[in-house]
Amino acid sequence: MDIYEEALQLHKDKKGKISTSLRGEVTPDTLKLFYSPGVAEASRYAQGSKEKLKEVSWTNNLVAVVSDGSAVLGLGDIGPEGAMPVMEGKALLFKHFADIDAVPIVLNVHTADEIVETVKRIAPSFGGINLEDIAAPKCFEIEERLKAELDIPVFHDDQHGTAIVTLAGLINAAKLAEKDIKSLRVAMVGAGAAGVAIAKLLALYGITDIVMVDSKGIISSDRDDLNEQKKSLLRLNTENRTGSLQDAVKGADVFIGVSKAGLLTKEMVQSMAEKPIIFAMANPDPEITPDEAKEAGAFIIATGRSDYPNQVNNVLGFPGIFRGALDNNVNKITDDHKLAAAEALANLVENPTTEFIIPNPFDEKIVTAVANSIV
Amino acid sequence: MDIYEEALQLHKDKKGKISTSLRGEVTPDTLKLFYSPGVAEASRYAQGSKEKLKEVSWTNNLVAVVSDGSAVLGLGDIGPEGAMPVMEGKALLFKHFADIDAVPIVLNVHTADEIVETVKRIAPSFGGINLEDIAAPKCFEIEERLKAELDIPVFHDDQHGTAIVTLAGLINAAKLAEKDIKSLRVAMVGAGAAGVAIAKLLALYGITDIVMVDSKGIISSDRDDLNEQKKSLLRLNTENRTGSLQDAVKGADVFIGVSKAGLLTKEMVQSMAEKPIIFAMANPDPEITPDEAKEAGAFIIATGRSDYPNQVNNVLGFPGIFRGALDNNVNKITDDHKLAAAEALANLVENPTTEFIIPNPFDEKIVTAVANSIV
Repeated sequence: MDIYEEALQLHKDKKGKISTSLRGEVTPDTLKLFYSPGVAEASRYAQGSKEKLKEVSWTNNLVAVVSDGSAVLGLGDIGPEGAMPVMEGKALLFKHFADIDAVPIVLNVHTADEIVETVKRIAPSFGGINLEDIAAPKCFEIEERLKAELDIPVFHDDQHGTAIVTLAGLINAAKLAEKDIKSLRVAMVGAGAAGVAIAKLLALYGITDIVMVDSKGIISSDRDDLNEQKKSLLRLNTENRTGSLQDAVKGADVFIGVSKAGLLTKEMVQSMAEKPIIFAMANPDPEITPDEAKEAGAFIIATGRSDYPNQVNNVLGFPGIFRGALDNNVNKITDDHKLAAAEALANLVENPTTEFIIPNPFDEKIVTAVANSIV
Repeated sequence: MDIYEEALQLHKDKKGKISTSLRGEVTPDTLKLFYSPGVAEASRYAQGSKEKLKEVSWTNNLVAVVSDGSAVLGLGDIGPEGAMPVMEGKALLFKHFADIDAVPIVLNVHTADEIVETVKRIAPSFGGINLEDIAAPKCFEIEERLKAELDIPVFHDDQHGTAIVTLAGLINAAKLAEKDIKSLRVAMVGAGAAGVAIAKLLALYGITDIVMVDSKGIISSDRDDLNEQKKSLLRLNTENRTGSLQDAVKGADVFIGVSKAGLLTKEMVQSMAEKPIIFAMANPDPEITPDEAKEAGAFIIATGRSDYPNQVNNVLGFPGIFRGALDNNVNKITDDHKLAAAEALANLVENPTTEFIIPNPFDEKIVTAVANSIV
């Protein structure tokens, strides 16, 4: 069996990945406290107050994992039923890594207006909202509106989780290459949710030369086909470079790919500055394989895969981010939080090497370190 | 501490009543099966199919407990935050009594249109919908529309759960009184969700003389202030009785109250037919106390309370009803199901007595017996 057959069989055997469980035993004595008539007092106490409700209900530890199924993994728009196994998996990771109760909510509506409206309507049920696998560009508007309109943390993990972990890895990669991170020339390919968020977070960190490539070439001021998000990246292309991916990569210190397998050739790696740093994070197959990258002289190669060193894995980020937000009553995840989380992750690697720039997901210190940065 | 103080303290100590838990261990080996990349195969498998999704996700065992908080216990419209402790309690009961995973969803919208629309949008996330504590009369429309428009079981427990358990008790009460149940004269007070549903289920069972009283008196054809649901009860008032509660009760075999404490006086009980059967189910305090009812000559007295015999408790119904619906792929709970569930419950009491007409909620045979009636 290959990994996909094995995974499907495991899903059929387990009939799901999470359950609910009880925080107390139900007996004739407790039934009248947990439920009618006693529960009435908890209801009276919580009425009209999100904060008081958190004292007496599971909302203090509860995150909704919300998707419309419009951009699931590399599978595209596969709808709510298709999305559910991934969202339930995310809920499993929330529980395993951060002891957060998470509930997958898949929606059969697709416009930004409908998604925003629906999440707002169910929001009193939860202590936080993790948006997941919602297609760009609507994901940007949805997250911005929900952050503005809700008073609980809202976090689109495909954007910011990926960006935080990428920045963490890049901090250590730059150190190893003995280059000033803020002076790095960065070439990126893939201007979806993850790509846009990575570019913005790197810029916030102080990197001043970031060139983004999409399917039409470099995003530059001579393009007339750019949506709002892509336009916002123009200011990062400080040299106003134009042309193709090949042009963007030539002379760059860093390549970051969140696009498609095979886009980066060995020749392109050879055209980069010395000690090329490659983050080839397309899933399931990277823009260039680690073997090819090394043959072409890459100094550091990171991917999204667990079977190679330097896995850029979102699971390093979201559990600790929500753990911190819930425990510290942080209702907005800010840019400062994201930068602090990235630095906390980078600092967890005490002695980085070219094959160990980011912590292992099963390092038990991660959640606390990240959570402590969300204050 | 009284029971309310004790309950609030317990809620604060536990910080909630349910959690999520894992169906499998998360290790480097299982992570790639439960989540990316392996989970992609479960997603491809489930895409577009509620039935296939049930094979590979927790939706096969999952019920949403949905409320807008507009009619919570006896507390009235206390909103989503106020409703949550009750809905989380219901989820606890689903798990304890029927091993069903249930998630409380409280909504901050209130019109029938908005509630129907919201539940439809999140419905792909669940295997069934338990509506709870939604005010009459909108609860009737909401349930009807959702039943018509969704292909998963939808059940408003305040209506049908109460009706099923009441009918179960009445079946045994009539036997003990040696009266033909279909010939009973029934007087009811309280024309909300529970009252209307009880009257309709008793009529379906074959009882032909049911007089309903609301705050204005007997619901009769000379009233010009009746909503649609109340009008539908006119046909059950076969003798076209008019007047007050006192008039309705006089000569009746059965009193059923789902209204307010103290409405039924000893004098009214004394005016009933011989062997009066009293279901005084107002919460937390009944329409007449069991002691007063007995002093006035009641043959059988049932209440909603656990500290008296004959507790009419919804927990006898909904766990088994959803257990059966989920296990037997029943997507509509029909009138026949409700009648069968009531008979199953009545039959569980092998030797009924005037103090034991309905099973004890902790009788472990209940869930299976009820579930087997939902086929």
